[in-house]
Amino acid sequence: MLSLRQLADALSATLVPAQNSGAAKIVARIASVRCADAASLVFAENEVALHEALASPAIAVLTTEHLAKQLPSPTKSLLIAAQPRLAFAQAARLLNPDQSSASIHSTAILGADAMFGLGVSIGAYTVVGERTQIGERTQIGAGCVLAEGVRVGADCHIYPRVVIYPGVKLGDRVVVHAGCVLGSDGFGYVRDTITGAYTQFPQQGTLTIEDDVEIGANTTIDRGALEETRIERGAKLDNLVHVGHNVRVGRNVVIAAQTGISGSSTVGEGAVLGGQVGIGEHAEIGPGVILGGGAGVLSKKKLRGAGMVFWGRPAQPLHEYLKGLATLARLTRKAKE
Amino acid sequence: MLSLRQLADALSATLVPAQNSGAAKIVARIASVRCADAASLVFAENEVALHEALASPAIAVLTTEHLAKQLPSPTKSLLIAAQPRLAFAQAARLLNPDQSSASIHSTAILGADAMFGLGVSIGAYTVVGERTQIGERTQIGAGCVLAEGVRVGADCHIYPRVVIYPGVKLGDRVVVHAGCVLGSDGFGYVRDTITGAYTQFPQQGTLTIEDDVEIGANTTIDRGALEETRIERGAKLDNLVHVGHNVRVGRNVVIAAQTGISGSSTVGEGAVLGGQVGIGEHAEIGPGVILGGGAGVLSKKKLRGAGMVFWGRPAQPLHEYLKGLATLARLTRKAKE
Amino acid sequence: MLSLRQLADALSATLVPAQNSGAAKIVARIASVRCADAASLVFAENEVALHEALASPAIAVLTTEHLAKQLPSPTKSLLIAAQPRLAFAQAARLLNPDQSSASIHSTAILGADAMFGLGVSIGAYTVVGERTQIGERTQIGAGCVLAEGVRVGADCHIYPRVVIYPGVKLGDRVVVHAGCVLGSDGFGYVRDTITGAYTQFPQQGTLTIEDDVEIGANTTIDRGALEETRIERGAKLDNLVHVGHNVRVGRNVVIAAQTGISGSSTVGEGAVLGGQVGIGEHAEIGPGVILGGGAGVLSKKKLRGAGMVFWGRPAQPLHEYLKGLATLARLTRKAKE
Repeated sequence: MLSLRQLADALSATLVPAQNSGAAKIVARIASVRCADAASLVFAENEVALHEALASPAIAVLTTEHLAKQLPSPTKSLLIAAQPRLAFAQAARLLNPDQSSASIHSTAILGADAMFGLGVSIGAYTVVGERTQIGERTQIGAGCVLAEGVRVGADCHIYPRVVIYPGVKLGDRVVVHAGCVLGSDGFGYVRDTITGAYTQFPQQGTLTIEDDVEIGANTTIDRGALEETRIERGAKLDNLVHVGHNVRVGRNVVIAAQTGISGSSTVGEGAVLGGQVGIGEHAEIGPGVILGGGAGVLSKKKLRGAGMVFWGRPAQPLHEYLKGLATLARLTRKAKE
Repeated sequence: MLSLRQLADALSATLVPAQNSGAAKIVARIASVRCADAASLVFAENEVALHEALASPAIAVLTTEHLAKQLPSPTKSLLIAAQPRLAFAQAARLLNPDQSSASIHSTAILGADAMFGLGVSIGAYTVVGERTQIGERTQIGAGCVLAEGVRVGADCHIYPRVVIYPGVKLGDRVVVHAGCVLGSDGFGYVRDTITGAYTQFPQQGTLTIEDDVEIGANTTIDRGALEETRIERGAKLDNLVHVGHNVRVGRNVVIAAQTGISGSSTVGEGAVLGGQVGIGEHAEIGPGVILGGGAGVLSKKKLRGAGMVFWGRPAQPLHEYLKGLATLARLTRKAKE
Repeated sequence: MLSLRQLADALSATLVPAQNSGAAKIVARIASVRCADAASLVFAENEVALHEALASPAIAVLTTEHLAKQLPSPTKSLLIAAQPRLAFAQAARLLNPDQSSASIHSTAILGADAMFGLGVSIGAYTVVGERTQIGERTQIGAGCVLAEGVRVGADCHIYPRVVIYPGVKLGDRVVVHAGCVLGSDGFGYVRDTITGAYTQFPQQGTLTIEDDVEIGANTTIDRGALEETRIERGAKLDNLVHVGHNVRVGRNVVIAAQTGISGSSTVGEGAVLGGQVGIGEHAEIGPGVILGGGAGVLSKKKLRGAGMVFWGRPAQPLHEYLKGLATLARLTRKAKE
């Protein structure tokens, strides 16, 4: 719990106390307007939301300077931030600090020469391989398997039942949700042209996941074949995503659920991939490119242009794709007549 | 094992004994016609199937009144039901009752203040958090992790290696197959417009799964962001399905494999979603709507009409979509000539 | 580590020693040209790759007879093979033999009447059910659950946290990556036409996985409803693939990530399915058919023709699909003018 003044300072926000209120008032939690109580902070980015917020039991509203100006004598305390939604997300972290106690469960199995930073917590029935290193304050849930030589940085949160293959490296503040598999073999086979049988191409590379990456439940990321798969700093992956071998996912890339990236493709910094996107092998998605949900990118294709939106299978610039849809609809109507 | 008479009574079916047979004959199992033996019950919903059934070693055939009338003196005993396929499914349950013995494995770790109904069974190496409640006769497989405050109703079957996050609630008779993750964080981030970095929007809501819901292997369902994700009574989800935060899936909805539903969308009662369907955020699928396999629904789109079929990406009414395909095929042929 | 001569013999390759070198030189590992050191074997299938290989620190290059002929006095030792990429994959196995020691971890729980071949290894916290049989030298990772009556052949590798349902059978040399679920219930329900509620159709069949099948992380394969699901010898499945009940996947079939095959469909020998392919129920993919990434096959559809490529949703022969795309693009341009 924090006072409004403490919260405003922590968020670099301007506090406008309600008419009959003080900055000492206490905030216990963030909430939606619908679920707010008298100790809740809510947020409003537009006029409708602001009026709903003012009508709720919440004690204070995070909002923009523009909206606040229209309320010369607010009935609730206002916190004015340049990016209220971002400040709201930061407030949630401040008000809900991680309370797990550092402890290594007695049933955790720790391999020889494993090294743990201060404040590490490891859940029941988790197996940690030889020469594994785990950084300070990192929490590892129950039932995980970290193979030999894995390195996990500080302040990470590995949820239950995650499997990390040998030698995979995670940076600091990485979040991995339950059921993920990190560092499995890539899907590379050589077909014997005589027998038709397939032999695995060597999958002996590594997987590196940089700082601040967050990964959703049951997502799978393969190790490199001969070299490396890399997920760069700040990338966010949703549930059930597949990342193939040798792929490079750039900084602050966002990838929605069930998207798949085939081997040796690259996704540039700040790109946004919708759900169920499919990317072929050796493709190149440029920095800042936006792929609509379900878009499909062919092998070896290069898509470029920060802020450019592509959609469809095969993916086209959005306006072309929409024109194609409109043309087909028009011709279909005409055919009917 | 049941006698034909017992089975007929339990299924509210009419028994027509074979010419030289009695109602005391014993049924041990249900089977396909191809695998049937002399203690098997098979079913037939059409004439071809009925003839195959009569030629099989099965002791009795579940069928319709209409088909039975065409056989005045059947060579096999018939069980006549209004919905023979449904009765066959019910017979399978009667003949194959759950035989797991109630027992809590000595390696299961039970958190403080966890409460268990009579007849609960918990598998090896399963971890149950503090204040968890598990209803009567519920079976929990090996290697599961139920976090603190989880509530599971009676007669549920949780298969091995399921992870349930804190505070998630399951009703009665819920089936959850292996590898599912229930209650993981939703995929909501706020982009800092200055740095381009993403901060998680609070994912502090809950997940409620009502009675008689069944969930396939490795499916993931996220908790609400500030409020609730809810799967209503009787919904059936296949393998590798993704359900985002704040989603509401209505009663008796059927969702085939690898379908994904983005945050804050709703699916109305009795809707049927094919495999690999993708639904954007804040979309609304009306009661009874049918989405063909691979259909894609845009964010905020509303699709309505019980029994209406939609298909394609973006999803259109089936007849329009098919007309579009036909038009394109015709124009392509014409271009060739 | 092997000498060049030993390696050439094991690969049935022809050794052409470098001018100032001998066949006794030692190879310790395979590598990419970029990561090669003085004990590395690299491979080259074309002239550019061969020149890069010769410029690298590698000790020897696997290549074709055709390329080797253009280098009368090579500066590096050459190994000439009919299929250099295949030989490279085989070299990787020879140089990197499995070194896991046979041991059953003290925390593994072994059911009554379970039988183990010589050299079996079982990881920590793995649970093996009653009457399970595991063949010689098979390795089972940590945290797996093999239910009662499962049979696993010899020389298999089951990675951590795999769940295998009762009675599933695996052949020899099967590889199953982490998080897979094998033998879960199929998605078959009977709708009560009165109440709209669904009852599970019996899912009492089996799952058989033949020799040399390899399965990627978090993939799910359902058991048959009344009969069998079968994955035939040498098939390779990538991550997050879904295979429904009663499906038959033929010999040496390749299935890329996130593809789904609905109930009762068949995929013929040597077919190649791209990523995110969707196949409806009771469909038939003929031997050698190639389905492009994201292709969709309707229920009951039959696609035939070895080497024929199909693409699109619904899947069409590639040239027709491309003509359709071209026609639409042309008409759209024309509409704009």
